[in-house]
Amino acid sequence: MRVAICQLNSLIGDIEGNKERILNGYKKGVQDGADLVICPELSLVGYPPQDLVEKVEFRQKVKECTEEIASLTGETGLIFGTITEEYDDVGTDIYNSTVLCYNGKIQTVQNKTLLPNYDVFDEVRYFESAKECKIHEFKGEKLGLSVCEDIWNDVDYWKKRRYVNDPVHKQIALGATLLINISASPYAHGKREQRREMLSVLTKKDNIPLVYACCAGVQTDLIFDGGSMCFDSKGNLCMLGKTYAEDYFIFDTKKEYEPIKKVESSFEEEALQALIFGVREYCSKTRFKEALIGLSGGIDSAIVTYIAVKALGKENVHVVMMPSEFSSKGSVDDSVMLIKNLGVTSDKVPIQPVFECVKNVLEPVFDGRPEDVTEENIQSRIRGLYLMSISNKFGYILLTTGNKSEMGVGYATMYGDMCGALAVIADVYKTDIYKIAHFINRDSEIIPKEIIEKAPSAELRPNQTDQDSLPPYDFLDKILKMYLEENKEFNQIVKELGKPDVVKRVLNLVDFNEFKRKQAAPALRISTKAFGYGRRYPIVQGWRRR
Amino acid sequence: MRVAICQLNSLIGDIEGNKERILNGYKKGVQDGADLVICPELSLVGYPPQDLVEKVEFRQKVKECTEEIASLTGETGLIFGTITEEYDDVGTDIYNSTVLCYNGKIQTVQNKTLLPNYDVFDEVRYFESAKECKIHEFKGEKLGLSVCEDIWNDVDYWKKRRYVNDPVHKQIALGATLLINISASPYAHGKREQRREMLSVLTKKDNIPLVYACCAGVQTDLIFDGGSMCFDSKGNLCMLGKTYAEDYFIFDTKKEYEPIKKVESSFEEEALQALIFGVREYCSKTRFKEALIGLSGGIDSAIVTYIAVKALGKENVHVVMMPSEFSSKGSVDDSVMLIKNLGVTSDKVPIQPVFECVKNVLEPVFDGRPEDVTEENIQSRIRGLYLMSISNKFGYILLTTGNKSEMGVGYATMYGDMCGALAVIADVYKTDIYKIAHFINRDSEIIPKEIIEKAPSAELRPNQTDQDSLPPYDFLDKILKMYLEENKEFNQIVKELGKPDVVKRVLNLVDFNEFKRKQAAPALRISTKAFGYGRRYPIVQGWRRR
Repeated sequence: MRVAICQLNSLIGDIEGNKERILNGYKKGVQDGADLVICPELSLVGYPPQDLVEKVEFRQKVKECTEEIASLTGETGLIFGTITEEYDDVGTDIYNSTVLCYNGKIQTVQNKTLLPNYDVFDEVRYFESAKECKIHEFKGEKLGLSVCEDIWNDVDYWKKRRYVNDPVHKQIALGATLLINISASPYAHGKREQRREMLSVLTKKDNIPLVYACCAGVQTDLIFDGGSMCFDSKGNLCMLGKTYAEDYFIFDTKKEYEPIKKVESSFEEEALQALIFGVREYCSKTRFKEALIGLSGGIDSAIVTYIAVKALGKENVHVVMMPSEFSSKGSVDDSVMLIKNLGVTSDKVPIQPVFECVKNVLEPVFDGRPEDVTEENIQSRIRGLYLMSISNKFGYILLTTGNKSEMGVGYATMYGDMCGALAVIADVYKTDIYKIAHFINRDSEIIPKEIIEKAPSAELRPNQTDQDSLPPYDFLDKILKMYLEENKEFNQIVKELGKPDVVKRVLNLVDFNEFKRKQAAPALRISTKAFGYGRRYPIVQGWRRR
Repeated sequence: MRVAICQLNSLIGDIEGNKERILNGYKKGVQDGADLVICPELSLVGYPPQDLVEKVEFRQKVKECTEEIASLTGETGLIFGTITEEYDDVGTDIYNSTVLCYNGKIQTVQNKTLLPNYDVFDEVRYFESAKECKIHEFKGEKLGLSVCEDIWNDVDYWKKRRYVNDPVHKQIALGATLLINISASPYAHGKREQRREMLSVLTKKDNIPLVYACCAGVQTDLIFDGGSMCFDSKGNLCMLGKTYAEDYFIFDTKKEYEPIKKVESSFEEEALQALIFGVREYCSKTRFKEALIGLSGGIDSAIVTYIAVKALGKENVHVVMMPSEFSSKGSVDDSVMLIKNLGVTSDKVPIQPVFECVKNVLEPVFDGRPEDVTEENIQSRIRGLYLMSISNKFGYILLTTGNKSEMGVGYATMYGDMCGALAVIADVYKTDIYKIAHFINRDSEIIPKEIIEKAPSAELRPNQTDQDSLPPYDFLDKILKMYLEENKEFNQIVKELGKPDVVKRVLNLVDFNEFKRKQAAPALRISTKAFGYGRRYPIVQGWRRR
């Protein structure tokens, strides 16, 4: 069987547009003589559609377009992801479905059985679980259709399974000869290798070929990295879709393929690609052509500027230097060097005049109280005010430059450096930012070495460095990774790292600063546990408060 | 049987503190000769604990404290809500449980069967559903223990049920003689009457008495309004706990009670009570004693100031007037009158000097471009900057004054008037704000009538009124209520209200401005569908984009 895989980039809610994307893929497949064309999970809807699913008119439109697509099919089969409804007297009646269409009709609907409801996933909120699990004969193959999570519950592969059911093995028991899993699986570091390994083990164990068709695109903060895969019945990876791009390719189940070898890519390379794709796609889908970044002379804003240039082109990236009286001469010089290296346009606007003016106006209110963190925040907020003003005036999207370490401990000013529409590196630890900088500079110096080598500083008071207020970043990041990613707690972290006072302080900072993160810009997600939608903590709580 | 109901106000995560709250209630019950003392759902943990549940050390602490509490019980029974774990080879192994303890031991554990996973609820994310449903004999009664949602699935009461199971009717079938439902049910307008009616219908139909013990308190944006209830087997409400306060009372299942009559309270009265409680509790749990509000001369900030005064006392409320060159003399005069009426302290800080200074600094960047909405935003952001500076300097909590109508259509400036830690009225439509103002003034003029009568205006350009940019609020609010609360869509709304162009514009504004709401302060929830945690839309989407 010749199977065409369409690795689509749907826009959530753009049912008409997504319909065209699916139909274009189908036409291409028909022209290429495919027997079957496959599009990803919820490709007609975009993933995750969130509460849009709860709207009757939305589902009505999805139903109409599903039927319209089906009506346009001929002998070539078409599989795509959509929402279907089945009424009974309990529950939402709504399903996350894969439909197989040919000869002008929906021939079979296989609903998703396993509904992920952890981290960034909320599918139980919307969908019912499939009531039955079947196979479908088509052109000599017995197809086992499934949706994403359905294939992530193999009793042998997982030490601890999430679900009782294993729909895919039910299909294998029913005599399936070809597994087709349509998917929407967001990128996190390590996920790509895990997908490949898990699917390879499964196809080999069960001696059955598999087509895994997933989407590529960015939905607000989630990066869907593509990489659709086709396995033969020996667990060999025969075909592999592009990463970070739409793709289309044909897999012939009867053909012998040279197994595709594993290519190791470093964390730095992967993260950088993901973030560039994230910025490009976010801007494209929100129709921003040009971006704005506040350049401090530090490494974070330098990396974000580099990413923006790669994503949007240097002519579309504008930076603003906003030195304070506490900025070192180096900061401006280093920024100027970076601007030259990257070829972006720049402005320089001093914050001192407005800072003085604000202090004068507030003097009667402050009534002789000594300067404190308030004045540091004022400077940061004046920068935010400038950036937002330029963003508003020129229609540039403002990119935020805070990293995960800072956002973790709340080393950021609300309505100041936290201003912006998209937080580009808020899921990247400071120590990883350095790794990325070295990777960028692997052939030639693009990020000036002065920027990489200087001690990180907010430059909001004389001779300030981050390490005045925070533990060294390599130690801080160890604590944060254990706390955030590995869900370890105080006792366990201290057992491994020692320094109970520092650990306690860091964990309390993370917990206390939840209120800042609740008002933060959405952050491109590249780890298994990012701040934002997939991490849900109460702002007001008393766990471990001392 | 004499049952003591402890309507507790737990703090999420404060396991030790909550343990004391439960034990204090138990001691009181023992002193009063109660047979059984009942505390609310997850009273040891606080509700909703969110991702804290995923931490091993957290659950370990909960387990220790659960056992400690049990070990301190004597002949008097104690029922409270906690987390328990039961290991098997699938799922999270974690349960939302009610435990019955006496004679120094946990005597029975009844796990929650029905796990709400809609709107603000995410329980499937954390908990497994109970594997069995039983009754427990205690002092001559057969107790049917259940947790919150368990009792919300009666086949006769609901036209459409959410769940297949009905654990409470299973217990009735097993011979239960007394139902005990422990609960944590957040307030929304109409919810209180619904609870009472549903439980009354159920107890009457099944001819069985019921104790419904719920919590009272505020968890970030969720207001738990109290009002625990005891019904006899005829469906009569025999006892009713306080609203918006902790409470403790004893119900004797053998005694005859005079049925408590329904007391109608207006939306305005209820909403005002809820919001005052919300501000008081939020500040108490975050340890803020004093609050700060920017006073514009408009009705929103006036109402928020009134609420803050009622919540914290006039001596703890500070307001700042920040007139612009476009502010009417009336605005300042009206504010001064309000300040006098409420007795709060005030400051007046002009924004003009800083506005001029910012414009000067940005002049080279703006390069002769005409003034536009940028300059309006700059003024709003200077106000935000002042307020945050005063908040930082004095340690006041900044309260945000935007209403639901504005937040709906994005008529608000990010990092400007949206600055603040808690959005007090962001779940109240503008038309309802007026109703609340009239209710406040029912006996004497507290909110100056000039403030109520003037046309709403941001006063950011000459002679500006809200209605230049928005449809009249009574029409806007009708559209918004249908769209947000009733989940109606374009066609349906136009069918009922007409004006397709206006409806289209409003719906597009709501959808488009999701990015602003994602960075908004948490908003006290008083409706069935508030912005925030319970309403989840993608920022980037193409539904109905034209």
